[in-house]
Amino acid sequence: MTKISVLRIGHRPERDKRITTHVCLTARAFGCKKIYLSKSDSRVIGSVNEVVDKFGGDFIIENISNPERFVKNWSGKVIHLTMFGLPIEDHLEELKNESRDLLIIVGAEKVPSWVFNEADYNICIGNQPHSEVAALAITLNKLDSQAHFKEYGGNLKVIPSATHREMVDNRNFD
Amino acid sequence: MTKISVLRIGHRPERDKRITTHVCLTARAFGCKKIYLSKSDSRVIGSVNEVVDKFGGDFIIENISNPERFVKNWSGKVIHLTMFGLPIEDHLEELKNESRDLLIIVGAEKVPSWVFNEADYNICIGNQPHSEVAALAITLNKLDSQAHFKEYGGNLKVIPSATHREMVDNRNFD
Repeated sequence: MTKISVLRIGHRPERDKRITTHVCLTARAFGCKKIYLSKSDSRVIGSVNEVVDKFGGDFIIENISNPERFVKNWSGKVIHLTMFGLPIEDHLEELKNESRDLLIIVGAEKVPSWVFNEADYNICIGNQPHSEVAALAITLNKLDSQAHFKEYGGNLKVIPSATHREMVDNRNFD
Repeated sequence: MTKISVLRIGHRPERDKRITTHVCLTARAFGCKKIYLSKSDSRVIGSVNEVVDKFGGDFIIENISNPERFVKNWSGKVIHLTMFGLPIEDHLEELKNESRDLLIIVGAEKVPSWVFNEADYNICIGNQPHSEVAALAITLNKLDSQAHFKEYGGNLKVIPSATHREMVDNRNFD
Protein backbone atom coordinates (compact mmCIF):
# COMPACT_ATOMS: atom_id res chain seq x y z
CA MET A 1 0.00 0.00 0.00
CA THR A 2 1.25 3.42 -0.91
CA LYS A 3 1.71 6.08 1.77
CA ILE A 4 -1.00 8.72 2.05
CA SER A 5 -0.55 12.17 3.60
CA VAL A 6 -2.96 15.08 3.91
CA LEU A 7 -2.50 18.79 3.28
CA ARG A 8 -4.96 21.11 5.00
CA ILE A 9 -5.18 24.58 3.45
CA GLY A 10 -7.26 27.67 4.16
CA HIS A 11 -7.60 27.12 7.92
CA ARG A 12 -9.19 30.18 9.59
CA PRO A 13 -8.27 29.91 13.28
CA GLU A 14 -11.52 30.96 14.95
CA ARG A 15 -13.89 29.39 12.49
CA ASP A 16 -12.06 26.17 11.66
CA LYS A 17 -10.26 25.16 14.83
CA ARG A 18 -12.50 22.19 15.53
CA ILE A 19 -12.95 21.16 11.90
CA THR A 20 -9.19 21.13 11.32
CA THR A 21 -8.79 19.03 14.48
CA HIS A 22 -11.34 16.57 13.08
CA VAL A 23 -9.49 16.54 9.74
CA CYS A 24 -6.28 15.63 11.58
CA LEU A 25 -7.89 12.90 13.72
CA THR A 26 -9.65 11.46 10.68
CA ALA A 27 -6.37 11.35 8.77
CA ARG A 28 -4.75 9.52 11.69
CA ALA A 29 -7.60 7.07 12.31
CA PHE A 30 -7.79 6.07 8.64
CA GLY A 31 -4.14 5.29 8.17
CA CYS A 32 -2.22 8.48 7.41
CA LYS A 33 1.06 9.08 9.21
CA LYS A 34 1.33 12.77 8.48
CA ILE A 35 -0.68 15.92 7.93
CA TYR A 36 0.65 19.22 6.67
CA LEU A 37 -1.00 22.45 7.84
CA SER A 38 -0.62 25.58 5.75
CA LYS A 39 -1.51 27.65 8.80
CA SER A 40 -0.22 26.66 12.20
CA ASP A 41 -2.65 26.54 15.13
CA SER A 42 -1.28 25.55 18.51
CA ARG A 43 -4.73 24.54 19.80
CA VAL A 44 -5.23 22.09 16.94
CA ILE A 45 -1.74 20.69 17.42
CA GLY A 46 -2.33 20.39 21.18
CA SER A 47 -5.63 18.52 20.77
CA VAL A 48 -4.25 16.11 18.20
CA ASN A 49 -1.03 15.42 20.08
CA GLU A 50 -3.07 14.67 23.20
CA VAL A 51 -4.91 11.94 21.28
CA VAL A 52 -1.63 10.57 19.90
CA ASP A 53 -0.07 10.55 23.39
CA LYS A 54 -3.02 8.59 24.79
CA PHE A 55 -3.92 6.29 21.91
CA GLY A 56 -0.51 5.71 20.35
CA GLY A 57 1.08 5.68 16.96
CA ASP A 58 3.45 8.15 15.39
CA PHE A 59 1.17 10.65 13.66
CA ILE A 60 3.02 13.84 12.73
CA ILE A 61 1.72 17.37 12.13
CA GLU A 62 4.03 19.54 10.07
CA ASN A 63 3.53 23.22 9.37
CA ILE A 64 4.44 24.43 5.90
CA SER A 65 4.74 28.07 4.96
CA ASN A 66 4.25 27.86 1.21
CA PRO A 67 1.64 25.25 0.25
CA GLU A 68 1.81 26.04 -3.47
CA ARG A 69 5.54 25.40 -3.64
CA PHE A 70 5.08 22.34 -1.43
CA VAL A 71 2.49 20.85 -3.79
CA LYS A 72 4.53 21.67 -6.90
CA ASN A 73 7.47 19.81 -5.36
CA TRP A 74 5.44 16.76 -4.28
CA SER A 75 7.04 13.76 -5.97
CA GLY A 76 3.95 11.51 -5.91
CA LYS A 77 0.36 12.10 -6.96
CA VAL A 78 -1.84 14.92 -5.69
CA ILE A 79 -5.56 14.47 -5.06
CA HIS A 80 -7.68 17.54 -4.38
CA LEU A 81 -11.02 16.77 -2.75
CA THR A 82 -13.63 19.21 -4.01
CA MET A 83 -17.37 19.19 -4.62
CA PHE A 84 -16.52 20.49 -8.12
CA GLY A 85 -14.50 17.43 -9.09
CA LEU A 86 -15.15 14.13 -10.82
CA PRO A 87 -16.54 11.18 -8.85
CA ILE A 88 -13.91 9.24 -6.91
CA GLU A 89 -15.59 6.08 -8.16
CA ASP A 90 -14.21 6.87 -11.65
CA HIS A 91 -10.59 6.84 -10.45
CA LEU A 92 -10.65 4.49 -7.50
CA GLU A 93 -8.89 1.54 -9.10
CA GLU A 94 -6.03 3.58 -10.53
CA LEU A 95 -5.59 5.36 -7.20
CA LYS A 96 -5.52 2.08 -5.32
CA ASN A 97 -2.88 0.80 -7.74
CA GLU A 98 -0.75 3.94 -7.58
CA SER A 99 2.77 3.15 -6.37
CA ARG A 100 3.83 6.71 -5.58
CA ASP A 101 2.91 8.50 -2.35
CA LEU A 102 -0.44 10.26 -2.39
CA LEU A 103 -1.07 13.75 -1.06
CA ILE A 104 -4.73 14.55 -0.39
CA ILE A 105 -5.57 18.26 -0.26
CA VAL A 106 -8.60 19.41 1.73
CA GLY A 107 -9.47 23.09 1.81
CA ALA A 108 -11.54 25.02 4.30
CA GLU A 109 -13.78 27.22 2.21
CA LYS A 110 -12.97 28.41 -1.31
CA VAL A 111 -9.50 27.21 -2.31
CA PRO A 112 -7.19 29.24 -4.59
CA SER A 113 -7.25 28.21 -8.24
CA TRP A 114 -3.67 26.89 -8.21
CA VAL A 115 -4.98 23.92 -6.21
CA PHE A 116 -7.15 22.81 -9.13
CA ASN A 117 -4.24 23.32 -11.52
CA GLU A 118 -1.55 21.53 -9.52
CA ALA A 119 -3.71 18.53 -8.53
CA ASP A 120 -3.40 15.37 -10.60
CA TYR A 121 -6.97 14.57 -9.60
CA ASN A 122 -9.79 16.94 -8.69
CA ILE A 123 -12.17 14.52 -7.08
CA CYS A 124 -15.54 14.72 -5.37
CA ILE A 125 -17.55 12.56 -3.03
CA GLY A 126 -20.77 13.72 -4.61
CA ASN A 127 -21.27 17.24 -5.99
CA GLN A 128 -23.29 18.58 -3.08
CA PRO A 129 -21.72 20.77 -0.39
CA HIS A 130 -20.99 18.80 2.77
CA SER A 131 -17.76 18.56 4.72
CA GLU A 132 -14.05 18.12 4.11
CA VAL A 133 -14.04 15.74 7.09
CA ALA A 134 -16.68 13.57 5.41
CA ALA A 135 -14.92 13.67 2.04
CA LEU A 136 -11.55 12.79 3.56
CA ALA A 137 -12.98 9.95 5.65
CA ILE A 138 -14.77 8.32 2.74
CA THR A 139 -11.78 8.75 0.44
CA LEU A 140 -9.34 7.19 2.90
CA ASN A 141 -11.78 4.39 3.70
CA LYS A 142 -12.26 3.64 0.01
CA LEU A 143 -8.51 3.67 -0.66
CA ASP A 144 -7.83 1.30 2.24
CA SER A 145 -10.88 -0.33 3.79
CA GLN A 146 -8.80 -1.99 6.53
CA ALA A 147 -6.72 0.95 7.76
CA HIS A 148 -9.09 1.83 10.61
CA PHE A 149 -8.59 -1.62 12.16
CA LYS A 150 -4.91 -0.95 12.80
CA GLU A 151 -3.61 -1.41 16.35
CA TYR A 152 -1.70 1.61 17.66
CA GLY A 153 -0.32 0.13 20.86
CA GLY A 154 -1.24 3.20 22.91
CA ASN A 155 -1.83 3.40 26.64
CA LEU A 156 -5.55 3.81 26.08
CA LYS A 157 -7.28 1.04 24.17
CA VAL A 158 -10.98 0.64 23.55
CA ILE A 159 -12.58 -2.72 24.25
CA PRO A 160 -15.28 -2.84 21.56
CA SER A 161 -18.70 -3.44 23.09
CA ALA A 162 -22.30 -3.71 21.94
CA THR A 163 -23.58 -2.17 25.15
CA HIS A 164 -21.21 0.17 26.97
CA ARG A 165 -18.08 2.32 27.13
CA GLU A 166 -14.95 0.39 28.08
CA MET A 167 -11.24 1.13 27.85
CA VAL A 168 -8.00 -0.38 29.08
CA ASP A 169 -5.88 2.37 30.61
CA ASN A 170 -2.18 1.59 30.99
CA ARG A 171 -1.11 5.12 31.79
CA ASN A 172 1.26 5.56 34.69
CA PHE A 173 0.19 8.48 36.82
CA ASP A 174 3.07 8.26 39.34
CA MET B 1 -34.46 1.53 0.82
CA THR B 2 -35.41 2.38 4.35
CA LYS B 3 -35.52 6.01 5.48
CA ILE B 4 -32.58 7.23 7.54
CA SER B 5 -32.66 10.21 9.91
CA VAL B 6 -30.00 11.62 12.22
CA LEU B 7 -30.17 12.78 15.81
CA ARG B 8 -27.44 15.14 16.97
CA ILE B 9 -27.00 15.34 20.73
CA GLY B 10 -24.65 17.21 23.04
CA HIS B 11 -24.14 20.25 20.82
CA ARG B 12 -22.24 22.99 22.67
CA PRO B 13 -22.96 26.22 20.76
CA GLU B 14 -19.55 27.90 20.77
CA ARG B 15 -17.46 24.80 20.39
CA ASP B 16 -19.59 22.76 18.01
CA LYS B 17 -21.30 25.25 15.75
CA ARG B 18 -19.30 24.33 12.67
CA ILE B 19 -19.12 20.61 13.42
CA THR B 20 -22.90 20.40 13.84
CA THR B 21 -23.31 22.27 10.55
CA HIS B 22 -21.05 19.70 8.88
CA VAL B 23 -23.06 16.89 10.49
CA CYS B 24 -26.24 18.37 9.00
CA LEU B 25 -24.76 18.88 5.53
CA THR B 26 -23.30 15.39 5.56
CA ALA B 27 -26.68 13.92 6.51
CA ARG B 28 -28.28 15.81 3.63
CA ALA B 29 -25.62 15.00 1.02
CA PHE B 30 -25.70 11.29 1.82
CA GLY B 31 -29.43 10.83 1.53
CA CYS B 32 -31.11 11.77 4.81
CA LYS B 33 -34.21 13.93 4.68
CA LYS B 34 -34.22 14.98 8.28
CA ILE B 35 -31.98 15.76 11.22
CA TYR B 36 -33.09 16.26 14.81
CA LEU B 37 -31.12 18.62 17.04
CA SER B 38 -31.34 18.21 20.79
CA LYS B 39 -30.11 21.79 21.18
CA SER B 40 -31.31 24.46 18.79
CA ASP B 41 -28.74 26.79 17.23
CA SER B 42 -30.02 29.47 14.86
CA ARG B 43 -26.60 29.86 13.19
CA VAL B 44 -26.45 26.16 12.32
CA ILE B 45 -30.02 26.24 11.02
CA GLY B 46 -29.27 29.39 9.01
CA SER B 47 -26.16 27.90 7.37
CA VAL B 48 -27.86 24.64 6.49
CA ASN B 49 -31.03 26.27 5.18
CA GLU B 50 -28.92 28.51 2.98
CA VAL B 51 -27.42 25.41 1.34
CA VAL B 52 -30.86 23.84 0.94
CA ASP B 53 -32.23 27.07 -0.60
CA LYS B 54 -29.40 27.15 -3.14
CA PHE B 55 -28.85 23.48 -3.90
CA GLY B 56 -32.37 22.14 -3.54
CA GLY B 57 -34.15 19.24 -1.90
CA ASP B 58 -36.37 19.16 1.15
CA PHE B 59 -33.98 18.59 4.01
CA ILE B 60 -35.58 19.38 7.37
CA ILE B 61 -34.03 20.34 10.70
CA GLU B 62 -36.25 19.72 13.70
CA ASN B 63 -35.48 20.70 17.27
CA ILE B 64 -36.45 18.27 19.98
CA SER B 65 -36.49 19.11 23.65
CA ASN B 66 -36.22 15.66 25.15
CA PRO B 67 -33.88 13.41 23.16
CA GLU B 68 -34.18 10.47 25.56
CA ARG B 69 -37.97 10.33 25.27
CA PHE B 70 -37.65 10.88 21.53
CA VAL B 71 -35.32 7.88 21.16
CA LYS B 72 -37.45 5.67 23.44
CA ASN B 73 -40.45 6.44 21.22
CA TRP B 74 -38.62 5.84 17.92
CA SER B 75 -40.56 3.10 16.14
CA GLY B 76 -37.69 1.86 13.95
CA LYS B 77 -34.12 0.90 14.75
CA VAL B 78 -31.63 3.12 16.56
CA ILE B 79 -27.93 3.15 15.68
CA HIS B 80 -25.52 4.96 17.98
CA LEU B 81 -22.18 5.78 16.36
CA THR B 82 -19.44 5.56 18.97
CA MET B 83 -15.75 4.68 19.03
CA PHE B 84 -16.66 2.24 21.85
CA GLY B 85 -18.99 0.15 19.69
CA LEU B 86 -18.70 -2.94 17.53
CA PRO B 87 -17.48 -2.66 13.93
CA ILE B 88 -20.15 -1.58 11.47
CA GLU B 89 -18.83 -4.27 9.15
CA ASP B 90 -20.31 -6.90 11.53
CA HIS B 91 -23.85 -5.53 11.13
CA LEU B 92 -23.86 -3.98 7.69
CA GLU B 93 -25.92 -6.59 5.90
CA GLU B 94 -28.68 -6.69 8.51
CA LEU B 95 -28.80 -2.89 8.60
CA LYS B 96 -29.03 -2.71 4.83
CA ASN B 97 -31.90 -5.21 4.95
CA GLU B 98 -33.73 -3.45 7.76
CA SER B 99 -37.24 -2.44 6.69
CA ARG B 100 -37.96 -0.03 9.54
CA ASP B 101 -36.73 3.57 9.59
CA LEU B 102 -33.25 4.05 10.98
CA LEU B 103 -32.24 6.76 13.44
CA ILE B 104 -28.50 7.40 13.64
CA ILE B 105 -27.34 9.14 16.82
CA VAL B 106 -24.13 11.17 16.77
CA GLY B 107 -22.95 12.84 19.94
CA ALA B 108 -20.60 15.74 20.39
CA GLU B 109 -18.27 14.69 23.19
CA LYS B 110 -19.17 12.19 25.90
CA VAL B 111 -22.77 11.06 25.50
CA PRO B 112 -25.02 10.16 28.46
CA SER B 113 -25.24 6.44 29.21
CA TRP B 114 -28.92 6.19 28.21
CA VAL B 115 -27.75 6.50 24.61
CA PHE B 116 -25.85 3.21 24.86
CA ASN B 117 -28.83 1.57 26.55
CA GLU B 118 -31.53 2.77 24.19
CA ALA B 119 -29.61 2.09 20.97
CA ASP B 120 -30.29 -1.15 19.14
CA TYR B 121 -26.75 -0.95 17.78
CA ASN B 122 -23.70 0.69 19.33
CA ILE B 123 -21.45 0.81 16.31
CA CYS B 124 -17.99 2.13 15.53
CA ILE B 125 -16.05 3.05 12.44
CA GLY B 126 -12.84 1.90 14.04
CA ASN B 127 -12.09 2.24 17.74
CA GLN B 128 -9.83 5.27 17.49
CA PRO B 129 -11.06 8.78 18.27
CA HIS B 130 -11.78 10.75 15.11
CA SER B 131 -14.93 12.63 14.15
CA GLU B 132 -18.68 12.22 14.23
CA VAL B 133 -18.74 13.78 10.77
CA ALA B 134 -16.39 11.08 9.49
CA ALA B 135 -18.31 8.29 11.20
CA LEU B 136 -21.65 9.52 9.90
CA ALA B 137 -20.36 9.96 6.35
CA ILE B 138 -18.87 6.49 6.15
CA THR B 139 -21.94 4.90 7.74
CA LEU B 140 -24.36 6.57 5.36
CA ASN B 141 -22.14 5.80 2.38
CA LYS B 142 -21.91 2.14 3.40
CA LEU B 143 -25.67 1.89 3.93
CA ASP B 144 -26.42 3.43 0.53
CA SER B 145 -23.44 3.80 -1.79
CA GLN B 146 -25.51 5.66 -4.40
CA ALA B 147 -27.26 8.27 -2.25
CA HIS B 148 -24.68 10.98 -2.91
CA PHE B 149 -25.38 10.84 -6.66
CA LYS B 150 -28.96 12.02 -6.15
CA GLU B 151 -30.11 15.06 -8.15
CA TYR B 152 -31.67 17.76 -5.98
CA GLY B 153 -33.01 20.06 -8.69
CA GLY B 154 -31.71 23.18 -6.95
CA ASN B 155 -30.92 26.52 -8.53
CA LEU B 156 -27.23 25.90 -8.10
CA LYS B 157 -25.84 22.81 -9.76
CA VAL B 158 -22.21 21.75 -10.01
CA ILE B 159 -20.88 20.70 -13.40
CA PRO B 160 -18.34 18.04 -12.41
CA SER B 161 -14.91 18.81 -13.83
CA ALA B 162 -11.41 17.37 -13.73
CA THR B 163 -9.85 20.81 -13.91
CA HIS B 164 -11.91 23.69 -12.56
CA ARG B 165 -14.83 25.07 -10.55
CA GLU B 166 -18.05 25.31 -12.54
CA MET B 167 -21.71 25.75 -11.58
CA VAL B 168 -24.98 26.43 -13.33
CA ASP B 169 -26.78 29.22 -11.48
CA ASN B 170 -30.50 29.52 -12.15
CA ARG B 171 -31.23 31.93 -9.34
CA ASN B 172 -33.35 34.92 -10.22
CA PHE B 173 -31.88 38.07 -8.71
CA ASP B 174 -34.60 40.44 -9.99
